[in-house]
Amino acid sequence: ENGVSVLCAEEHVQGPFLLTMCDHLLPQSAFEEMLKIHLNNDEVALLVDRDLGKFAHSDLEEATKVLVREGKVVQIGKNLSQYNGIDTGLFLCGESIFEALKKAQSDGDTTLSAGIRLLASEGRVRAVDGPGGPWFDIDDNRSIEKAEQQLLRELKKTTDGPISRYINRPLSLRITRYLINTPLTPNQLSFLSFLAALVAGAIFAVKGYAALVIGAVLAQFSSILDGCDGEVARLKYQTSEFGGWFDAVLDRYADAFVFLGLTIHLLWEGATLGPVMAGYFSVSGSLINSYTAHKYDDYLRNRLRGRAVTLRLGRDVRIFLIFLGALLNRVLATLVVLAVITNLENIRRIWVLYREWSKKKE
Amino acid sequence: ENGVSVLCAEEHVQGPFLLTMCDHLLPQSAFEEMLKIHLNNDEVALLVDRDLGKFAHSDLEEATKVLVREGKVVQIGKNLSQYNGIDTGLFLCGESIFEALKKAQSDGDTTLSAGIRLLASEGRVRAVDGPGGPWFDIDDNRSIEKAEQQLLRELKKTTDGPISRYINRPLSLRITRYLINTPLTPNQLSFLSFLAALVAGAIFAVKGYAALVIGAVLAQFSSILDGCDGEVARLKYQTSEFGGWFDAVLDRYADAFVFLGLTIHLLWEGATLGPVMAGYFSVSGSLINSYTAHKYDDYLRNRLRGRAVTLRLGRDVRIFLIFLGALLNRVLATLVVLAVITNLENIRRIWVLYREWSKKKE
Repeated sequence: ENGVSVLCAEEHVQGPFLLTMCDHLLPQSAFEEMLKIHLNNDEVALLVDRDLGKFAHSDLEEATKVLVREGKVVQIGKNLSQYNGIDTGLFLCGESIFEALKKAQSDGDTTLSAGIRLLASEGRVRAVDGPGGPWFDIDDNRSIEKAEQQLLRELKKTTDGPISRYINRPLSLRITRYLINTPLTPNQLSFLSFLAALVAGAIFAVKGYAALVIGAVLAQFSSILDGCDGEVARLKYQTSEFGGWFDAVLDRYADAFVFLGLTIHLLWEGATLGPVMAGYFSVSGSLINSYTAHKYDDYLRNRLRGRAVTLRLGRDVRIFLIFLGALLNRVLATLVVLAVITNLENIRRIWVLYREWSKKKE
Repeated sequence: ENGVSVLCAEEHVQGPFLLTMCDHLLPQSAFEEMLKIHLNNDEVALLVDRDLGKFAHSDLEEATKVLVREGKVVQIGKNLSQYNGIDTGLFLCGESIFEALKKAQSDGDTTLSAGIRLLASEGRVRAVDGPGGPWFDIDDNRSIEKAEQQLLRELKKTTDGPISRYINRPLSLRITRYLINTPLTPNQLSFLSFLAALVAGAIFAVKGYAALVIGAVLAQFSSILDGCDGEVARLKYQTSEFGGWFDAVLDRYADAFVFLGLTIHLLWEGATLGPVMAGYFSVSGSLINSYTAHKYDDYLRNRLRGRAVTLRLGRDVRIFLIFLGALLNRVLATLVVLAVITNLENIRRIWVLYREWSKKKE
């Protein structure tokens, strides 16, 4: 039983130490919270989930239940008739846990719960409310799948634009599910997405409708893949300021190559001034869109405080418009539309932030 | 005498209040420092400049001198034989100043110094070290000019690039000297500089060498004028986060218009693919240069801590290269050079920040 496993660690640890079930998946914040506790050496703290409403009936049956009174665990076990919390399996232990386990063992019960029960009967098990996010007890294939789905679902971002939310993100999450089992790093994925856009731009630059179709699919694929770097990074706790910046800079180059390809495509059809200007204004508008996004997003975050943005003209929308325009063989019209909306959006952002600033000055 | 002027304020103020000579020009920080002092109502605090070495002999003769002992002013006057500080003319006064001035008046001396001398003899004048920056006693035309020059000199920025430092800044400072006497706001100046670049781009787009010359001069003028908005803002304490951002966004559009004009200029000469690609890569490289500058400058500031940057490829250099290239009628070569150096600079920045990040991870 698991009490025996804990006793094997006695010679190797000094209290207080964290103890967790190897088949429980808990959010990082849970560990951080537990490590903040100032524990007496004769105490044990247990992270208890008090939010019983969220558990399915079948999950409750399997779970180790806890009865908490005034911040202390007073009863613990699988078959409590009365309980108000679930044992998350994360403990912060003083060294007294070992004495308790030995005592339980000599009484003939070698489970960890038996040791905890002994300490609880002496009022020495603190109940800590938590964890901040969802957690999982992985017992079978069904629970693995459930945990995966939940973790992937949490990768969605409230700042996702409409195309990202309804098209790109659901697809990128499926890809990420495979990618997490490869050694590909988030930065490598950023670069792969950039390469896909670079090739899309090169193909766009070729004469003929077939090039447009292939380029369109590749550009949209690149836009979908562009979500995976962040998803993998968040799943593997590999997010970094550099990674986010690197991805953003590569996206700017990806945009530039896609627009260049489309402009060159139009040159084959004999036009010059029109497509050059449309291409110029759309690439400038897009790049300056990204340039103004930093400050504008700060402003939005302040105003929305976590609510989802209703309509945000970002890269997801731009690339999707290019995807549609290329498929429909309407490249010049697409560039003109993008030139107009990206630059209008920039003017709108300047106006919104100007008004905000004027208000603050008063 | 000025003691009489102070007495006129008696009915209108409650202590502690700031009192300053109307012909002394002090930095904002001096007032901020004085306002932090917790003053007893029977005290007066005087901001004393202890850095005597920086004064010219002639200035010292004119100045009101102060002898400070253990944080208190013990003597004050124009003709002290022994002194260790200069009276900056900035006081924080308790209401006891009025009693002292009346007493001095009844003794036949109506100067502020006489009142201060009375308080000083009772150990009630605190000496505060300061001010943080240069200050001026404006007595004649020569001192006005000196103050102007000093204030303008301080507008230089350590992050200025080489062209900015040696060409644009000296010229923009001369323009700013006139602009501060107009009601033009910093944001309006940003817009004027943008308009100049917009017109430069439009003129570049016209066929013929004359257009290149006029466009070149106008573009470089716009780049010089681009320094004035910040200079006026700093001089008039009108700097704002919005203003800095607005200027930066308009600069991006100014860049885009200048590059577009040059590209169209090349189209008149019959070329298509070459100039379009050169124009594209140079405008993208430049805009992404500005996109990466935010983070890269943070990194530089951290490393340099106030030392001047030795070589920074920024907008000042880009516009100056365009100025030279257009004057020399070498537009395509200029675009190619700019495409190469801006994009190489971006790759270099990614590399530098990647290395920095890798080091930190270890």
